[in-house]
Amino acid sequence: MLIATSQSLHFEAPLPLQSGASIRAYDLAFETYGTLNADQSNAVLICHALNASHHVAGVYTGQAKSEGWWDSMIGPGKPVDTNRFFVIGVNNLGSCFGSTGPMHINPDSADGQVYGADFPVVTVEDWVDAQARLLDRLGIGTLAAVMGGSLGGMQALAWTLRYPQRVRRAVAVASAPNLTAENIAFNEVARRAITTDPDFHGGHFYRHGVVPKRGLRIARMIGHITYLSDDVMNAKFGRQLRHAVQDAAAHSDYRYSTQEVEFQIESYLRYQGDKFADYFDANTYLLITRALDYFDPARKFDGSLTKALAAARSKFLLISFVTDWRFAPSRSREIVKALLDNQRDVSYAEIDAPHGHDAFLLDDVRYHGVVRSYFDSLGTEVGV
Amino acid sequence: MLIATSQSLHFEAPLPLQSGASIRAYDLAFETYGTLNADQSNAVLICHALNASHHVAGVYTGQAKSEGWWDSMIGPGKPVDTNRFFVIGVNNLGSCFGSTGPMHINPDSADGQVYGADFPVVTVEDWVDAQARLLDRLGIGTLAAVMGGSLGGMQALAWTLRYPQRVRRAVAVASAPNLTAENIAFNEVARRAITTDPDFHGGHFYRHGVVPKRGLRIARMIGHITYLSDDVMNAKFGRQLRHAVQDAAAHSDYRYSTQEVEFQIESYLRYQGDKFADYFDANTYLLITRALDYFDPARKFDGSLTKALAAARSKFLLISFVTDWRFAPSRSREIVKALLDNQRDVSYAEIDAPHGHDAFLLDDVRYHGVVRSYFDSLGTEVGV
Repeated sequence: MLIATSQSLHFEAPLPLQSGASIRAYDLAFETYGTLNADQSNAVLICHALNASHHVAGVYTGQAKSEGWWDSMIGPGKPVDTNRFFVIGVNNLGSCFGSTGPMHINPDSADGQVYGADFPVVTVEDWVDAQARLLDRLGIGTLAAVMGGSLGGMQALAWTLRYPQRVRRAVAVASAPNLTAENIAFNEVARRAITTDPDFHGGHFYRHGVVPKRGLRIARMIGHITYLSDDVMNAKFGRQLRHAVQDAAAHSDYRYSTQEVEFQIESYLRYQGDKFADYFDANTYLLITRALDYFDPARKFDGSLTKALAAARSKFLLISFVTDWRFAPSRSREIVKALLDNQRDVSYAEIDAPHGHDAFLLDDVRYHGVVRSYFDSLGTEVGV
Repeated sequence: MLIATSQSLHFEAPLPLQSGASIRAYDLAFETYGTLNADQSNAVLICHALNASHHVAGVYTGQAKSEGWWDSMIGPGKPVDTNRFFVIGVNNLGSCFGSTGPMHINPDSADGQVYGADFPVVTVEDWVDAQARLLDRLGIGTLAAVMGGSLGGMQALAWTLRYPQRVRRAVAVASAPNLTAENIAFNEVARRAITTDPDFHGGHFYRHGVVPKRGLRIARMIGHITYLSDDVMNAKFGRQLRHAVQDAAAHSDYRYSTQEVEFQIESYLRYQGDKFADYFDANTYLLITRALDYFDPARKFDGSLTKALAAARSKFLLISFVTDWRFAPSRSREIVKALLDNQRDVSYAEIDAPHGHDAFLLDDVRYHGVVRSYFDSLGTEVGV
């Protein structure tokens, strides 16, 4: 079993941000798995999505249930094989899992207050810049691969554009070249649920000793609906009721209540919402969904993704899932087309998995087979 | 121009409900358009969906902008032609537009309080029973047609099962034989936004002089996303920004804010949410979404829709829209198949309109053509 150890590095130099602001100084939490080879050619950077961290693979000592979020994909003998590759997981700025974020002390605050709503807006490009500095400190010039799913795939794509010479291959799973209006709409409803929660206090809830849990619960429930396919929801929950009615004389098996749980799907969503609200930071939720909204490499090229991706030099693997209605296969195909327009080396797999967007975290055999084969050939290429 | 007049009738006899409870006495608000013919053969009942009322067609005197919610469909010379048919719009029990609902005095309350959360849970079948009593009072035995879209289509279907001898034709547009887990999930998130709003007070907010507007806004925003197609959202809003940046030296056209409106779609949703929260009743929202959740005629037949629909005697017209992902065409086809299994007379049209679920309220020429032709032949059949 792979044992993970959380590490952290402090960065003194301010990080200039896309917004024009900057972060004065910051810490990045990260983990590494496997061994960096002598010529530093086997490094793989894993980028995370909304609700994840630098804890990508393995477990912490003495915590058997603490598997990293992509443990099915990454580890000894797994598709991304840590016996061959040196894998790095990093927690992004603004997150709530170890790197500097809204719940940390704002160095610009005269009386030592935490950032809260004053944490600067960070973008996918800002995260990539911060990750590049981490690689500098780790002595890694070129990545064998950068890889991520969903928002993590956007970071992989951004890497190939901001640091084209530092990426050999990029793997983007269940990703998109930008958000659609509907994607933004779901993000916005979730954000409004948080910001209109009376416990939000304009983002400075920490100093009031409260947490906008109502809003976080709603945000998570909305998120969960968009992560799953209609089919998998019907298969898992369908119209099943939460409580079997014991009274044989009952008029019906319904309880007839507007406020109590009636269906299993309601119970599931409430549970997910409660769990999330207990650990996730509300300002982080706003920051990360905004980073999603803002990502749009084609924007500076009059909407031409082909022109935007002309800067990329790496090889690419794109993977999508047919039941993913959040980042549908058509969105991955837009990236594939733009790369082919630029004569880039692209592999693309569209996997007929039933799980919707969440499929990127699961271990479909075809999906993992594609990734394994891609990293096998990459290992040969870099001599590991 | 058709002039509409809102009417109301009081019903003294208690109405037994599916839940086993009953409503002691109640009023139903309704409107009629056109003239009932001598043999009462030309009556058409229109059933409404979540956010609509008995004001189906025409305008109120002196209020030019007060068109009924299906005015494009119903009126003199329109697909449902009020020169030939006597059309009835009725507001359902539990609604907030005139019929008895949660904001009315509870006759069981010792101190004259309004129902609030004590309003009994009502189902599609209960509404149909109440509508049947209204027809009794209007002297109408058999309906030439019962018609509705979305939840209104469910009522049309329920009519053919509860009162098979009283319906000549049923028209269900953008409807479904029950809700999927995903449909219920969206309803539940909206309800949780309302019930966890501190101003909800367990549904008795009236006596606190407040309204759970935060929750109503979120509920409406979620609803709006599910009423529109991804395509129409992209066409109408795409990634357009709300404010053009005036500063030519600006780093970007983004404003970089997590809480302010950045995209047009956000502005649209906030506006829709604000408007809705100003007039819609929170308890009504819970009641109507629960009626949607509970509707499931196949439930008492071990899930067999074919067995459930064996009771129906009317002719049917089903219409769906290919971009409707809330009540997708596949759901209408389930109904069509179950009716055909029972050798019923069914017409079905699947319209390639871009607007998603909302298409049922719009005036696509093919959609209206199908309805017009169906009511033309019905008019001939009943001699008008």
